[in-house]
Amino acid sequence: MTIPYGGDYNPEQWPAEVWDTDHRLFDAAHIDTLTVGVFTWALTQPAPDVYDFSTLDRIVSRAAAAGRRICLATGTGAHPPWLAKAYPSVTRTDFEGRKHRYGQRHNSCPSSPEFRRLSAETARRIARRYAGHPAIIAWHVGNEYGGACYCSYCAAGFRGWLRTRYSTLDGLNAAWYTTFWSHTFTDWDEIEPPSALTEHWRGPDHTAFQGITLDYLRFMSDAMLANFSDEKAAIRESDPDTPVTTNFMGLYRPVDYHRWAPHLDFVSWDNYPPDDRSAARMALAHDLMRGLKDGQPFWLMEQTPSVTACRDVNPLKRPGVMRLWSWQAVAHGADAVLFFQMRAGRGASEKYHGAVIGHAGRADTRVFREVAALGAELRRIGPATLGGRTPARVALLFDWDSWWALEISDGPSRLVRYLDVVQAYHRALWDAGAGLDVVPVTADLTGYDVVVAPVLHMVKGDLAARLSEVAARGGSVVTTFLSGRVDENDNAFLTDVPGPLGPLMGVRVDEWDARESDHVNPVAIGPAAVAARLLFELVIPQGAEVVGRYRSDFYAGTAAVTRNTYGDLLSGDRVTRGQVVTLDAHDVMVIVTDR
Amino acid sequence: MTIPYGGDYNPEQWPAEVWDTDHRLFDAAHIDTLTVGVFTWALTQPAPDVYDFSTLDRIVSRAAAAGRRICLATGTGAHPPWLAKAYPSVTRTDFEGRKHRYGQRHNSCPSSPEFRRLSAETARRIARRYAGHPAIIAWHVGNEYGGACYCSYCAAGFRGWLRTRYSTLDGLNAAWYTTFWSHTFTDWDEIEPPSALTEHWRGPDHTAFQGITLDYLRFMSDAMLANFSDEKAAIRESDPDTPVTTNFMGLYRPVDYHRWAPHLDFVSWDNYPPDDRSAARMALAHDLMRGLKDGQPFWLMEQTPSVTACRDVNPLKRPGVMRLWSWQAVAHGADAVLFFQMRAGRGASEKYHGAVIGHAGRADTRVFREVAALGAELRRIGPATLGGRTPARVALLFDWDSWWALEISDGPSRLVRYLDVVQAYHRALWDAGAGLDVVPVTADLTGYDVVVAPVLHMVKGDLAARLSEVAARGGSVVTTFLSGRVDENDNAFLTDVPGPLGPLMGVRVDEWDARESDHVNPVAIGPAAVAARLLFELVIPQGAEVVGRYRSDFYAGTAAVTRNTYGDLLSGDRVTRGQVVTLDAHDVMVIVTDR
Amino acid sequence: MTIPYGGDYNPEQWPAEVWDTDHRLFDAAHIDTLTVGVFTWALTQPAPDVYDFSTLDRIVSRAAAAGRRICLATGTGAHPPWLAKAYPSVTRTDFEGRKHRYGQRHNSCPSSPEFRRLSAETARRIARRYAGHPAIIAWHVGNEYGGACYCSYCAAGFRGWLRTRYSTLDGLNAAWYTTFWSHTFTDWDEIEPPSALTEHWRGPDHTAFQGITLDYLRFMSDAMLANFSDEKAAIRESDPDTPVTTNFMGLYRPVDYHRWAPHLDFVSWDNYPPDDRSAARMALAHDLMRGLKDGQPFWLMEQTPSVTACRDVNPLKRPGVMRLWSWQAVAHGADAVLFFQMRAGRGASEKYHGAVIGHAGRADTRVFREVAALGAELRRIGPATLGGRTPARVALLFDWDSWWALEISDGPSRLVRYLDVVQAYHRALWDAGAGLDVVPVTADLTGYDVVVAPVLHMVKGDLAARLSEVAARGGSVVTTFLSGRVDENDNAFLTDVPGPLGPLMGVRVDEWDARESDHVNPVAIGPAAVAARLLFELVIPQGAEVVGRYRSDFYAGTAAVTRNTYGDLLSGDRVTRGQVVTLDAHDVMVIVTDR
Repeated sequence: MTIPYGGDYNPEQWPAEVWDTDHRLFDAAHIDTLTVGVFTWALTQPAPDVYDFSTLDRIVSRAAAAGRRICLATGTGAHPPWLAKAYPSVTRTDFEGRKHRYGQRHNSCPSSPEFRRLSAETARRIARRYAGHPAIIAWHVGNEYGGACYCSYCAAGFRGWLRTRYSTLDGLNAAWYTTFWSHTFTDWDEIEPPSALTEHWRGPDHTAFQGITLDYLRFMSDAMLANFSDEKAAIRESDPDTPVTTNFMGLYRPVDYHRWAPHLDFVSWDNYPPDDRSAARMALAHDLMRGLKDGQPFWLMEQTPSVTACRDVNPLKRPGVMRLWSWQAVAHGADAVLFFQMRAGRGASEKYHGAVIGHAGRADTRVFREVAALGAELRRIGPATLGGRTPARVALLFDWDSWWALEISDGPSRLVRYLDVVQAYHRALWDAGAGLDVVPVTADLTGYDVVVAPVLHMVKGDLAARLSEVAARGGSVVTTFLSGRVDENDNAFLTDVPGPLGPLMGVRVDEWDARESDHVNPVAIGPAAVAARLLFELVIPQGAEVVGRYRSDFYAGTAAVTRNTYGDLLSGDRVTRGQVVTLDAHDVMVIVTDR
Repeated sequence: MTIPYGGDYNPEQWPAEVWDTDHRLFDAAHIDTLTVGVFTWALTQPAPDVYDFSTLDRIVSRAAAAGRRICLATGTGAHPPWLAKAYPSVTRTDFEGRKHRYGQRHNSCPSSPEFRRLSAETARRIARRYAGHPAIIAWHVGNEYGGACYCSYCAAGFRGWLRTRYSTLDGLNAAWYTTFWSHTFTDWDEIEPPSALTEHWRGPDHTAFQGITLDYLRFMSDAMLANFSDEKAAIRESDPDTPVTTNFMGLYRPVDYHRWAPHLDFVSWDNYPPDDRSAARMALAHDLMRGLKDGQPFWLMEQTPSVTACRDVNPLKRPGVMRLWSWQAVAHGADAVLFFQMRAGRGASEKYHGAVIGHAGRADTRVFREVAALGAELRRIGPATLGGRTPARVALLFDWDSWWALEISDGPSRLVRYLDVVQAYHRALWDAGAGLDVVPVTADLTGYDVVVAPVLHMVKGDLAARLSEVAARGGSVVTTFLSGRVDENDNAFLTDVPGPLGPLMGVRVDEWDARESDHVNPVAIGPAAVAARLLFELVIPQGAEVVGRYRSDFYAGTAAVTRNTYGDLLSGDRVTRGQVVTLDAHDVMVIVTDR
Repeated sequence: MTIPYGGDYNPEQWPAEVWDTDHRLFDAAHIDTLTVGVFTWALTQPAPDVYDFSTLDRIVSRAAAAGRRICLATGTGAHPPWLAKAYPSVTRTDFEGRKHRYGQRHNSCPSSPEFRRLSAETARRIARRYAGHPAIIAWHVGNEYGGACYCSYCAAGFRGWLRTRYSTLDGLNAAWYTTFWSHTFTDWDEIEPPSALTEHWRGPDHTAFQGITLDYLRFMSDAMLANFSDEKAAIRESDPDTPVTTNFMGLYRPVDYHRWAPHLDFVSWDNYPPDDRSAARMALAHDLMRGLKDGQPFWLMEQTPSVTACRDVNPLKRPGVMRLWSWQAVAHGADAVLFFQMRAGRGASEKYHGAVIGHAGRADTRVFREVAALGAELRRIGPATLGGRTPARVALLFDWDSWWALEISDGPSRLVRYLDVVQAYHRALWDAGAGLDVVPVTADLTGYDVVVAPVLHMVKGDLAARLSEVAARGGSVVTTFLSGRVDENDNAFLTDVPGPLGPLMGVRVDEWDARESDHVNPVAIGPAAVAARLLFELVIPQGAEVVGRYRSDFYAGTAAVTRNTYGDLLSGDRVTRGQVVTLDAHDVMVIVTDR
């Protein structure tokens, strides 16, 4: 057993003679795993009542005959033209309220009854046909779930989701704070998806009612999860064991992967960093993906061997970079190294996307040679890394709810971006070489010495208590500005900021200042100073020690960085040096509790 | 009697125990006036045929019991969800042609028959219930009227408005210059609201027919005025005397406050400057508001004690700034100093908007202390400033028609913005400490020694004659580039530029040059030079004396600034020093007539 | 016979007494040609069954009486309000899927049966009435054809156009590469116009299927050509001889003028350069226009005597510039010098557009004097330049298909713009004073010594063979990066880049790097270096000599500029010095074949 190596392969786009060339080159490059069928719905179901697996049969047979492992997709990443014509409900209505007609991919309304029925049926039939095939090592459902729909089916689904969540309109009105702006709902049918036609202006992040928008984000993530679950259940009818996954997209805001992860047998994700300065960003994404299922290894389902095509500017991966990043993935927990794609398509929007085999079919290109060399390396290392776990003393909390709540908020500053802050803290720990897990706010924290919770805007459930326990048993908790602001419904805590984190942090914040990105307020920490930007909380210590002070403005000399002793033990010094980190865009203020 | 001090208060968002805390803190801060009910439609009319004033009764009683004065709102600033569901006509159709569904606020179509009927009925019932209550000192109708609607009801309303204005299609075709581009209308029903689906491209300022767009701006301002008047008339059925107002927004383009002002018993406005460098801008806005009703004092209806929430970046008012700006308002004619809001809401889009009382309910914050200190000061000054008038020798003309016409014009330059120029002139006078009124172009000018008319693009009615009279009796008239261009229908005068201002100015302009904002042409005025930008009129003196000359380009040495002697008297020197002012963004060229 | 001099004249906007003034001033300025009737549909057909030529009769008679030549328009550049109301199909549906109502101009759906029928009928009646009038020297159909429509009539038209092109769905599916993303079409009616509601995101250049979008661009150009042809055929029923044209817009992407040109009797175009640094750009546009009909002279149908109005900033033509640019047009092949417009309109969006006669009707303006002086010059030169031809040794290939394909491509770089590169090469030749034709890729190349083909992204038909013949007979062929990439359906060639140009160029390209615009890689050519930007092909010589090498990055030292000897003859040195040119925005890499 070696690390699965290969990637997306679409031989249905090519005549049979090309297949032979491909497999010959796969052998040359030690490629042993192929993801097939990701966009084959039109192929396997060419008409409403017609299923035709003949081409897919040949693809699977040919791959198996060559000894390759197969990750078999259900093919529902895009629906065929006839489906949109026969069942108009399957296309989406966008944020602007426009009903789409046939086109693109990721184009299915998650709430369409016909889409749900027919996508599950396709998965069911494929599983029935190929279940038990010895080459198949995993099922790949859909593709890069994402986007959103605002149609009447989704509106109805949203109302049902809300009834489940709130039971009564009184509960919903309280959660959404509808006394504000005369919004009291008196009938479930009055509720609309929050869009450019209802609660939003300027775009998806500008909403009159954060609670409504937040719930719609949660609902839409759940609605797409239902699509995944539909297909997985259909697969399980024929195949009880082979693991099922779908390819995630790393630091992707629209889908709450923490809520999805329990439903996947293993996590896989597609890694398309913008350029070759992306190592730290990828490290965070890998750690987040590994943390989705309690540290269980994941698959690197897609990466380009050379260039992307979807960006305005698509730089080339320099020599060695593909290899380096593949090993980075493995080091962070990847149990597979896969490319998109094996052979470059001739036409449409990905014809310039990099591939192991280019349009000319050559094996003597730099890119092919690097792919083959890595294949040889992976074969040499064998199973050594498979199933590996990386115990860590440090946990970094990542939370889609806080991400959403922070970025759809009116005030204090649209310039503070969740990922910027999280990445800054992650990078500081990564630069320091700390063993580190990125975990959800519901994670068991008892095993960690240090818990870092950047911009923990929303504090839900018993989290404050669990963080306090970390400190109480001698661990360190690090958090930042704009933490402890709202409850799970995005309603402000009716206490001093930072809300339920107050006792732990030993501070109180009555006011805060936001400034344009070119404004700097230096913060003195001992003899050093860091440049603070964007958002300045005026911290009033309530027992905490002052570690850093603002140097300018009317709040010069007041606390910017603090450290609190919590519980009975003395303060240690373990985390202090990592507590103030510098972002590319701005510096962050850290409120520290430590004992 | 003291200056009313307090602001918007929404206790319906809170349980009763909070009310007691609030009133205790109001006492501590000398808060004696509360604006209540601004968004209470869903509260007072929870269903089509149900009115329920029980909560409002308690709010009013509690406030009155504490001795506070009440500005009582009709609550129609947003309509409730049930209304949009029962009567789809009440929601707006936007500039893009999209029919909105329920959401946000300021969301009512001004032409919807159901909105007009039901909003008036709400006002009627509230007035009937509370008229005569001794605590009520003013009625507050709607909230921050603004925006626009492009639905079929508005289309019908527009056609009716046009019939009234033009009587015949011949008249309309002449006014709109429809021979151009084959636009001759032969049936009133052919006329559409000018939008992204008809005459516009890129946005609301880019129109194929300025005349159509200009009339729609006028119509929409009038349509919303009809909404205000509907409610005021309903109030007057029960209460013949208590003054009625609505809160304006200062330098707000969509609504022609000059046309509205006669219908208000007093003017009030909401002052939300972008940051702490806004003093000059606020001075202009205060002066404009004071000038709406011939110098009658106005109310500062809203200001934040600390921060806004609606901006991308919401800076904090520094210590003392709130006090300073409150006194600035009083000095400019404010007879009330009110905040939005008394207690911070927990949820939705204004939860981070500053408030006198924050989420924690503290009185020991910097902000509360400053509010309380100002309350004490206002109490000490008593009635001294109430009803004050500020006679002035200088009038600055402000005209929504010129604002609109200038900014929807194709050519000469989209970079010339009405407010930039007006503010530059206002600031020069304000810096010089001149007593100054900002008045409409229809104002009586006989009492002024100096009349400043920046970018007086449109010259209507007898204005040219009245300006000439100012000069003829020895006064000074100052105007600028891009003045005297079009008549009330936005048709060019068929004479030399500056049209009917030509004899007064003693100049003629055949051509003009527009350049990007980084292009400078220095203008020499005596030994000094100012940097002219954006728009360069090539001025040919027709009797005027040349004061300043361009220094570069092919028109170097020609007139940029001139002074004309008009009538029999000798020229004075009163205004000359103020005539050339420097804008932040660009310098302006001044054409002066002086005698 | 002299060069026709004059321009657009709309006396229908004015009372009769103004006409007399106009003709007196025309005489003074030697104006002998008037384009009339461009927007007269509402005038000549004021109601469905009513035609009224009385005003147009008077306009034509008055002009003829003054001895002026007339270019008579059919008046269909905008349709009248009644037409949109009576036949809603005539208005367009935009890229966003929004059905427009009445407004603007260029507002007719090209596929609307009613528009096609009624526009042709208007042309038919005008031709019937005025055919044979001795003053009429040309027919002017429509006006500045352009834009696009996405309505159901256009969808139906598109499907018909596709059936003609591909015959079968199999052919279409192959051309569009629909196996990708499950797009296999199984019914012609499944095909939708590619828009924001189907295949596009972000805008018209971002499409999931380049083949679909490319075909829609071709179809839309053809659909508008059908409108032109409808009217021309209607004219020809009464007038077999008088030449028919429509005014093109030079470097205008949406319409493939090469496909239109055979249908026009002569080419005419409107020249509105952005500012006074536009000489090189205009030279390219003139050459392109002259090349549309094998070097046949064209008309300069419109230019402003002074300023435009449609831009954000509309600079003034400096003294002498209008004269200079008029002569530039003549030198490039213009057989007419015409203005828009003769008298400035009073209202609507062109009231600030420059005119020979301004609003005040003066003859003593600088602009009028320059117009009159040029008129006198043109009269003096007489027929000397009429019908002139300019034989050239150099051909520059221009291709709308390559323009479209390059700019709708996903990858490698959105920053590479077709016109930027073409202009850079044209400018280098123009700076060198080379006699130069700009010709379509289908042109006969046998007469040229040098053929320059910048960004020849798409290589169609026998073009590669014809370019090879140029080289084989001792000529030079110059091409650039991003050439030889796709076939006529935008499918990649299944060979090494540059596809069928490979043997001619003697190079192979396996990979390419794209970088942001501020990234420079210097290319050393002999002792000199040029700054290369945006897109870097890694060139592997296959027989070609290396002329220039990259100086930085991992491909430092490898080939950037090459020269290949092709055929039997020795390489000359004719083109080499012009082969590397510097763009304003970026430098280009040149692959040279030369013998």
